[in-house]
Amino acid sequence: MEAYTVFKDLAIIIIIAKVFGILARKCRAPQVVGEIIAGLLIGPCVFGWVSQTVFLTEMAEIGVILLMFSAGLETDLKELIKTGPVAFLIACCGVFVPLICGAGLYMAFYGVAPWGSEEFYKAVFMGTILTATSVSITVQCLKEMGKLKGHVGTTILSAAIIDDVIGIVVLTFVIGFKSPDSNPLQVVISTLLFFVFAIVVGFIAFHIFAIIDERYTHTRRIPITGFAFCLAMAYVAERYFGIADITGAYVAGIILCSVKDAEYIARKMDVNSYMLFGPIFFASIGLKTNIDNLTMDIFIFSIAFVAVGLISKIVGCGLMARICRFKGNDSLKIGVGMMTRGEVALIVAQKGLSVGLMSPVYFTSVIFLIIVSSIATPIILKILYAAKQEDLIEMDPYNT
Amino acid sequence: MEAYTVFKDLAIIIIIAKVFGILARKCRAPQVVGEIIAGLLIGPCVFGWVSQTVFLTEMAEIGVILLMFSAGLETDLKELIKTGPVAFLIACCGVFVPLICGAGLYMAFYGVAPWGSEEFYKAVFMGTILTATSVSITVQCLKEMGKLKGHVGTTILSAAIIDDVIGIVVLTFVIGFKSPDSNPLQVVISTLLFFVFAIVVGFIAFHIFAIIDERYTHTRRIPITGFAFCLAMAYVAERYFGIADITGAYVAGIILCSVKDAEYIARKMDVNSYMLFGPIFFASIGLKTNIDNLTMDIFIFSIAFVAVGLISKIVGCGLMARICRFKGNDSLKIGVGMMTRGEVALIVAQKGLSVGLMSPVYFTSVIFLIIVSSIATPIILKILYAAKQEDLIEMDPYNT
Repeated sequence: MEAYTVFKDLAIIIIIAKVFGILARKCRAPQVVGEIIAGLLIGPCVFGWVSQTVFLTEMAEIGVILLMFSAGLETDLKELIKTGPVAFLIACCGVFVPLICGAGLYMAFYGVAPWGSEEFYKAVFMGTILTATSVSITVQCLKEMGKLKGHVGTTILSAAIIDDVIGIVVLTFVIGFKSPDSNPLQVVISTLLFFVFAIVVGFIAFHIFAIIDERYTHTRRIPITGFAFCLAMAYVAERYFGIADITGAYVAGIILCSVKDAEYIARKMDVNSYMLFGPIFFASIGLKTNIDNLTMDIFIFSIAFVAVGLISKIVGCGLMARICRFKGNDSLKIGVGMMTRGEVALIVAQKGLSVGLMSPVYFTSVIFLIIVSSIATPIILKILYAAKQEDLIEMDPYNT
Repeated sequence: MEAYTVFKDLAIIIIIAKVFGILARKCRAPQVVGEIIAGLLIGPCVFGWVSQTVFLTEMAEIGVILLMFSAGLETDLKELIKTGPVAFLIACCGVFVPLICGAGLYMAFYGVAPWGSEEFYKAVFMGTILTATSVSITVQCLKEMGKLKGHVGTTILSAAIIDDVIGIVVLTFVIGFKSPDSNPLQVVISTLLFFVFAIVVGFIAFHIFAIIDERYTHTRRIPITGFAFCLAMAYVAERYFGIADITGAYVAGIILCSVKDAEYIARKMDVNSYMLFGPIFFASIGLKTNIDNLTMDIFIFSIAFVAVGLISKIVGCGLMARICRFKGNDSLKIGVGMMTRGEVALIVAQKGLSVGLMSPVYFTSVIFLIIVSSIATPIILKILYAAKQEDLIEMDPYNT
């Protein structure tokens, strides 16, 4: 067992991600874009210096947990409650429009399948992959621009969280028709139970934290206990309720966001995040990519898949936002902010593979979607925000 | 692959280690002692909540790297050069006295073996296990007391680093007599080459850092680049020169210790360390312990082994320190500070196992030595320092 071999991977990831992050800034694009490109470069696609290992996967998972926890901590709870109902409507459109469009695309390529047939479910499954927004890149991007706490930022975040939950329910429904051991009703129940659990635990945890915080403001034990709480919530969500771990971490953040030291906790999390876990998470998206098995057919399907994936989210979420009386520019921001896909899409694809609803050749399409959306979202968001305010770089609250 | 399962382990380690760390402070013992005890409790010895996984081993390795890098960063270079020759003498005694005593102990238990026989090398090997000081616990303990930069602290650190190197050379010599593929001369050469390499790279890296630092003081890129440099040095040391990775990390710290932002880098490293990696490293010592195969014979041998291990270091290093004109109390501090054993002892034991110089039953003895020395050293050090100054708690530069 030679533990030191991971040091090489870590050193390469950290330094290349930072260099490309800085280069991205110089081109006025968000840092995350640079970090994802860094992952592509050092991964099997280009230089092959680093390959995705179990260790890096787990580190990346901690990275996304930290990101979501920190997003939760920075949530304005009043704003969240205010945006809740609207976010729910946006999330619903953000799930069903891509679901229908994805299924339609598959049928457009491979022929219309009759309701209930094997091919029909395969088409629906392709739509299911498109449902879940991966908000982490949007979060990081809004954070870089100092826009996470605003009305639009909170709406995107709440909608993305709700859309994750709906997406998981849809996935379970689709799979439920194929495999007998998946029970859609049970998924709905356990999802509801998780939120009941979160409210009860949240109430208790908040009061315990408030007491500790009162006595030991700005001591190490506050962020340490907070971090442990976040990990525990992520674990419990996934292990006992079948909810994504990132949702658990986000909920943990929301529970603690009104504690006096919330900002102090977030700051300590950020150090962990930007020093190590963040770069690993963003670079790992690029690391996962392997274009060895790409054929022309799949390539063309992939392009259509990516286009449908992006446009259906923008249209679905954007239109609903507009209906809910957001301004035109803000509706577009919401649509674009919701279009990123990430690890959840991969998890869904993996699930489809294992139950025989998806052929492995479509993995490349999913990864394309993740990369294109991850790179396009931050750039477009930045342009949309810059349309109103000149020179966002100046407003950057972080030093890089 | 279910990455979320590690969250449970991490949450348990972080929270239990913190609670026991705080309890240890309340009993006026250093925090590390609490963290090691926490590892024992949650590990297979007592409750079995967490077991040592490959992931935790790698996290612990990053933990010890961070610790050593941070120790290097806080080094007073002038003091190091001043203490160098004395540290070398202390290290030599710290290697050869335990080596002889350990071999003697084995012969006392199992009969005197003739020079050059199989049993003779087994006895010498038992002594070899006792040679390498694991300075990380002493470092953490001196840090907690704010004594890392002093004359005694720097001497202990330099001596421990040198003793690591001598220990590795001795190990290679002993194994060289058994296996044909290990060449003692080559080890000496590659050790020398590493220090030549470190000086050349150090000279270049220092100047590059000084330039970056001048332009971007207190920006994130400084600690990030520093951390990447530390990982790279740790990797290169172990991979290309056969030197322990922790030595590489420490050398990286020393190279950067005169950079203007050294303290800023160290502070950011500390956040990573105390939030996650530190507790994992210290708890993992306890996690490794498994007392299932313990017999009475081995138990008695272990007690003697631990006693000889501790006393031979105190006597060897302490006496040489006294000869080098340290005061009585300071000599004792140096002896005690050098008596901790850690992962290097385990690595040596593993090596002995693989070449057939050690039976696996003695693993328990080695782990006993690590645990006892890890718990005893900080407590005794604290008492020795408190003998001069009352109430060290008040001087604690860290909030816990």
